[in-house]
Amino acid sequence: MAEADFSLQWILDPVDRAEFLEAYWEARPLVVARGRPDHFRHLLSLEEIDRVITTMNLAHPDVQMVNAAEDIRADRYTYRNGMIDVVKLYQLFADGSTIILPQLHTRVPPLAAFCRGLEREFGCRFQTNIYMTPGEAQGFKPHYDAHDVFVLQIAGSKDWRLYGTPVELPLKGQRFNSERHETGAVSQTFTLHPGDMLYVPRGLVHDASSSDEVSLHITTGVMASTWTDLMLDALSAVALEDVEFRRSLPFGFAGDGFDRAPARETFARLIERFAAKADLDEVLEHFVDDLVSTRHPLLQGQMSQLARLDTLTVDDEAGVRPELIHRIQETVDSVRIDCYGREISMPAHAAPAVRHALEQQRYRIADLPGDLDDSGKLVLIRRLVREGLVRLL
Amino acid sequence: MAEADFSLQWILDPVDRAEFLEAYWEARPLVVARGRPDHFRHLLSLEEIDRVITTMNLAHPDVQMVNAAEDIRADRYTYRNGMIDVVKLYQLFADGSTIILPQLHTRVPPLAAFCRGLEREFGCRFQTNIYMTPGEAQGFKPHYDAHDVFVLQIAGSKDWRLYGTPVELPLKGQRFNSERHETGAVSQTFTLHPGDMLYVPRGLVHDASSSDEVSLHITTGVMASTWTDLMLDALSAVALEDVEFRRSLPFGFAGDGFDRAPARETFARLIERFAAKADLDEVLEHFVDDLVSTRHPLLQGQMSQLARLDTLTVDDEAGVRPELIHRIQETVDSVRIDCYGREISMPAHAAPAVRHALEQQRYRIADLPGDLDDSGKLVLIRRLVREGLVRLL
Repeated sequence: MAEADFSLQWILDPVDRAEFLEAYWEARPLVVARGRPDHFRHLLSLEEIDRVITTMNLAHPDVQMVNAAEDIRADRYTYRNGMIDVVKLYQLFADGSTIILPQLHTRVPPLAAFCRGLEREFGCRFQTNIYMTPGEAQGFKPHYDAHDVFVLQIAGSKDWRLYGTPVELPLKGQRFNSERHETGAVSQTFTLHPGDMLYVPRGLVHDASSSDEVSLHITTGVMASTWTDLMLDALSAVALEDVEFRRSLPFGFAGDGFDRAPARETFARLIERFAAKADLDEVLEHFVDDLVSTRHPLLQGQMSQLARLDTLTVDDEAGVRPELIHRIQETVDSVRIDCYGREISMPAHAAPAVRHALEQQRYRIADLPGDLDDSGKLVLIRRLVREGLVRLL
Repeated sequence: MAEADFSLQWILDPVDRAEFLEAYWEARPLVVARGRPDHFRHLLSLEEIDRVITTMNLAHPDVQMVNAAEDIRADRYTYRNGMIDVVKLYQLFADGSTIILPQLHTRVPPLAAFCRGLEREFGCRFQTNIYMTPGEAQGFKPHYDAHDVFVLQIAGSKDWRLYGTPVELPLKGQRFNSERHETGAVSQTFTLHPGDMLYVPRGLVHDASSSDEVSLHITTGVMASTWTDLMLDALSAVALEDVEFRRSLPFGFAGDGFDRAPARETFARLIERFAAKADLDEVLEHFVDDLVSTRHPLLQGQMSQLARLDTLTVDDEAGVRPELIHRIQETVDSVRIDCYGREISMPAHAAPAVRHALEQQRYRIADLPGDLDDSGKLVLIRRLVREGLVRLL
């Protein structure tokens, strides 16, 4: 399977993406029991987890252990310098504790491509945390997460329980607190088997325990920005432009006899100014910029790509890198590519060729549109390959 | 002079406080050259600074040195453990560098009382940074501060230059950056002599150099919250109550073909909801709470106060501690004092006596109003003295 096929539809299949967005997204849980144990085979396996743990020389907290029945301190499975003691780690695992590999998409290429594909589709950051639980064990007590998750069951099976929603769509600052939040009664129970998927909207309390064999699942976190984030950003943007927002609170406002009536008027007037001046498009651009500029390169194969540049001809084929998230901005005299936190500028007349090169999966270099001659097309493609935006096929 | 006399009017005299608030506050600089060299004599002196530096065993960064002509690294006047090497410090000072004692109100009682008095009057946090400059020297290059300051000249004299205002009333995040901000042309020059005062609104560029003798001044910083702070807080408060604000940004908003029209409607609708739901009084209370709960006790004399409690009679006199910043909240069955980050509750029938005890500078215990008997009045005053709210006179 090509990496580019990692998509929301692929996660949901056979449920339709449009139906999911309409009826489930941020609203209610969805279980897809699709009876295809190998659906996620290109993403992760028990063997790959064993390779990560035993060969990558990891340290805490890149590997963590939890157990709903007891606290597992890191010094029980690490050396003094923080490196993982794999002997102890697997002993604790065999005795009932869960191994967590947070942010494993930063180390395992298929998970990286998977996150990047969803990032491009949703428009927000994704992460994958991995949970490997021995038989008959439970990693966490009931809790909710402050971000939506897609749980992908890779191996073994796990019995899930869903409870209530003490906080509907909590913000990041509204983390689950067992002393403050009621879990509510069990509302749904089911078992995930390999290839199955569970969507849990943020705020919905859940827990899970493995059946009689090792269970491996990926928790895919949707690190979405909310309208609150956007409005706070919009307010800050207006304040930077309008000095009325930057004035101090009224002199003596904390005092006993302070008359708040004029302050209420100021407040109402500032909200009106905010409504009049706030510009959705400007602020939305900040969020797009932030996503585009912070997506670091995923460049497997770049070594051999550069080796081929010396002998490149216009009959060779190229295509945009499938994980690329970029923006193209055109002005009268230049075309600018924003990507990997950098800006790459070229003369305006290269714009049609640049757009084609960064939009199409496969093309012959000679077929690039616009008024570049063959030599210009080769210069362009060499540049785009060197910058990690295009790959030779 | 009683500590309680430290006030804005005392800083400004003979300029009227109302005139200052009307014409200068957050608008333009004010120089008060009052020809009374001893005006600040109860606040600070060169001798007191010498005592602080030579006897208080301070470490960097509680003592710092600067010089507009060269970088002065801390290791030139500190031991390896960070403690100040007073020999080297005074040598560098004699050679032209400025000594800074940041936040000295945390160590010198009159400065603490001075800040507390202004905090109660303004309703925001204050700080005092001390600058001692040798003759013919300059500590800083031209810059603006992101908070308003009152400069009090204690000893020696200093020649000031005011420039332009590249950012009107900058927010905390808009710090001066010499590469980004123009200082503008010199707009005003003058010399501060002992007892003189200079008010500089935030954003106004300034610098200063000493004349031929040692100069000592206090820079009193007004750490005010702005309407931006308040509106951000109001928006967060509404978002915690209204799930519409907590939804994710639209699916796929960062993509090329995304239609922003529905998002613009959502944005406009949310601003309307914000306008309808935001409550100035509720949010203003957060800011009052924050000020009240973070003002730690200033309790000089508390040792002997407690020693007197055993022999207290209703003929003794007491009064509220002059530096006290507190709030009283009454419910049907109790009266609650918020102070020093604590809540002190008492039965509701004590409320009249509590209010009197915490409002009046001097009263006979027997004269407390309300229905407490003499024994009840003694219990109350003992409690308030022990809590550091009232002092026996």
